[in-house]
Amino acid sequence: MQDSVAGQIAYLRKGLAELIREDELRERLSAGRPLRVKAGFDPTAPDLHLGHTVLLRKMKHFQDLGHTVIFLIGDMTGLIGDPTGRNATRPPMTRADIERNAETYKAQVFKILDPERTEIRFNSTWLETLRFEDLVRLCSRYTVARILERDDFSKRFRDGVPISVHEFLYPLAQAYDSVALEADVELGGTDQKFNLLVGREIQKDYGVRPQIVATVPILEGLDGVNKMSKSLGNYIGITEPPEVMFRKVMQVSDELMWRYYELLTDLSEDAVGALRAAEKPMEAKIGLGKRIVADFHSTDEAEAAAEEFNRVVRRKEIPADIPTFAMPEGVLQPAGVRVDKLLPRIGLADSVSDATRKIKSGAVEINGTRVRDLAYPANGELLIQVGKSWRRVTA
Amino acid sequence: MQDSVAGQIAYLRKGLAELIREDELRERLSAGRPLRVKAGFDPTAPDLHLGHTVLLRKMKHFQDLGHTVIFLIGDMTGLIGDPTGRNATRPPMTRADIERNAETYKAQVFKILDPERTEIRFNSTWLETLRFEDLVRLCSRYTVARILERDDFSKRFRDGVPISVHEFLYPLAQAYDSVALEADVELGGTDQKFNLLVGREIQKDYGVRPQIVATVPILEGLDGVNKMSKSLGNYIGITEPPEVMFRKVMQVSDELMWRYYELLTDLSEDAVGALRAAEKPMEAKIGLGKRIVADFHSTDEAEAAAEEFNRVVRRKEIPADIPTFAMPEGVLQPAGVRVDKLLPRIGLADSVSDATRKIKSGAVEINGTRVRDLAYPANGELLIQVGKSWRRVTA
Repeated sequence: MQDSVAGQIAYLRKGLAELIREDELRERLSAGRPLRVKAGFDPTAPDLHLGHTVLLRKMKHFQDLGHTVIFLIGDMTGLIGDPTGRNATRPPMTRADIERNAETYKAQVFKILDPERTEIRFNSTWLETLRFEDLVRLCSRYTVARILERDDFSKRFRDGVPISVHEFLYPLAQAYDSVALEADVELGGTDQKFNLLVGREIQKDYGVRPQIVATVPILEGLDGVNKMSKSLGNYIGITEPPEVMFRKVMQVSDELMWRYYELLTDLSEDAVGALRAAEKPMEAKIGLGKRIVADFHSTDEAEAAAEEFNRVVRRKEIPADIPTFAMPEGVLQPAGVRVDKLLPRIGLADSVSDATRKIKSGAVEINGTRVRDLAYPANGELLIQVGKSWRRVTA
Repeated sequence: MQDSVAGQIAYLRKGLAELIREDELRERLSAGRPLRVKAGFDPTAPDLHLGHTVLLRKMKHFQDLGHTVIFLIGDMTGLIGDPTGRNATRPPMTRADIERNAETYKAQVFKILDPERTEIRFNSTWLETLRFEDLVRLCSRYTVARILERDDFSKRFRDGVPISVHEFLYPLAQAYDSVALEADVELGGTDQKFNLLVGREIQKDYGVRPQIVATVPILEGLDGVNKMSKSLGNYIGITEPPEVMFRKVMQVSDELMWRYYELLTDLSEDAVGALRAAEKPMEAKIGLGKRIVADFHSTDEAEAAAEEFNRVVRRKEIPADIPTFAMPEGVLQPAGVRVDKLLPRIGLADSVSDATRKIKSGAVEINGTRVRDLAYPANGELLIQVGKSWRRVTA
């Protein structure tokens, strides 16, 4: 807690989507007491990618300043499973499942969080003790109309898509978690804003000082367009090998690189600004890659990954004068760049089917990596090689 | 269970507003097993009037045929009180309060119900054992949209009148009562139809055979227009003295008398039809008065009340030829006949203020009873006396 309150706020604000409200945060920081900072996580088996680390890193920032972070595992919903019984893929979990998932979480999140300043809690601890009357009291604190204001509910209600009554219980239970934990701050993605604000109000009703709500943005994936996600393939997993992580970072556009600097490193805004002003984007991108690999592996492995990348890319005799194209229309799609459609447009194939054949046979490399899929999940500058022909495509 | 199934159904159907569904009732009656017939009651201190007995009498009809009636006291809501804490008049009840109210209920309802075939149950017994996960499961069985279809909710939602989330829990809890009790039939007023049908569906979800739903109409009060209610003053309380009960019955219109025969006696429809065909309405009304007094006091007291009424009315030297008027327009109001407005229209006062003065001074009698209020809560034939002047007003 050595930093000034203003300095702490600047550090904590970095990369936040929203802070409700800064004056309350200032007041609590001024009191000098370590804050209790809550963030909730699913009880399902975690396999985290960098998208998840935006939130974890913000939790770490609070720890860096001496505050206590509560890693709350929402196991109650897991213990219930899909209560409608319609979803065969969501059977109830056992305590053993949840314990095992908690261990997996620890192995992953303690790469970022400080175990000494982390409380791992399970919301079944207090939710299981609630009786019918407690739940009636809890539910009496909120109106149907206000819950229906939540974006997803209002849309479903308007469209006639069924909402089961139990779905109304979850935001209230999450709010009650904040009562039980006496959270000073709750962190979450922007998609959690409504629920976090409910927590703020319910705490007030239960005589607990209302929590400060801080949301972090949803991280874009390597394509720079869609949310980073496993299923879209545009992710960097935190357990991926160093050279894979590094190469994926090198794929991203310069613009996205600065976004990643903001959300995936501890560098201050000023430090990022200075890097940007230096106008050496390739160096900056290599620096980002090293930082990210070092976070999840080690600085040695980060150096090695950078050298390996350099060796592979530099090994090629890249011609000095490569024809450069702007990205043609209709080629950039949600899943990424459709390479099969791109190649004929820049003179590297005769047709889409010719391009497809070339890709499948392993004749196409982009940014030093052989591609096998028709879609390439990135939207930065592309350096494409087919045989002895080279093309550069700007984003 | 001596009666034929068709005979039982005729007896049970009498006076029902709705039966969902008769074929299911027939099937269950045919199985010969005594049915479990549930009806729910508030845990508040009861002070019953004839309006409440319509439901009790229908319960009794099931008992008459050998079935078991479950008198369910919804004590859980009483134990919670007003969960919003805004309603100072609804503090939580204690167990002792509830026990005391249950005793008061027994003293009153066993004037109609057979204690041998009545189970008195409290829903806290099972609702208190529900845990968070049980409630989530229960709530998952019903959608928000369908609960919002309930008349009162849909109106409030449309009008922007707040509905607290806990209000959605109550119909589901009431439905769960039917699961816990394995009710074959649930009885209630027409205003309960929605809740009773929710019970039917929730039972199905819990693997219990869905209950048959039977609703009884809301009883009109002595004015023949409004629902019988304490606050409107148009009621006959079941603990009122014999002569008061009898006199109040004698006030009602002939039309309402037949309605009361249907809903407040055990006479079959055929028997009521025969009385009606006899075209002796005064005799029929005296018979109804005696039956009602006998239900809540004794046949001796019923006879005595009839004689007393006769004596008081006959004591007067009623002129043979009384001028007869139809009820003038604008005189019959929701609260009853506005006597102050009536008297000047039938030549018994010079003006409304003269009529008011006469009423206040006790100079006006209607149907043998001195009136002191400007409104007379009945709409049957009126025999009005002011001093030596008489008028008859037909309904």
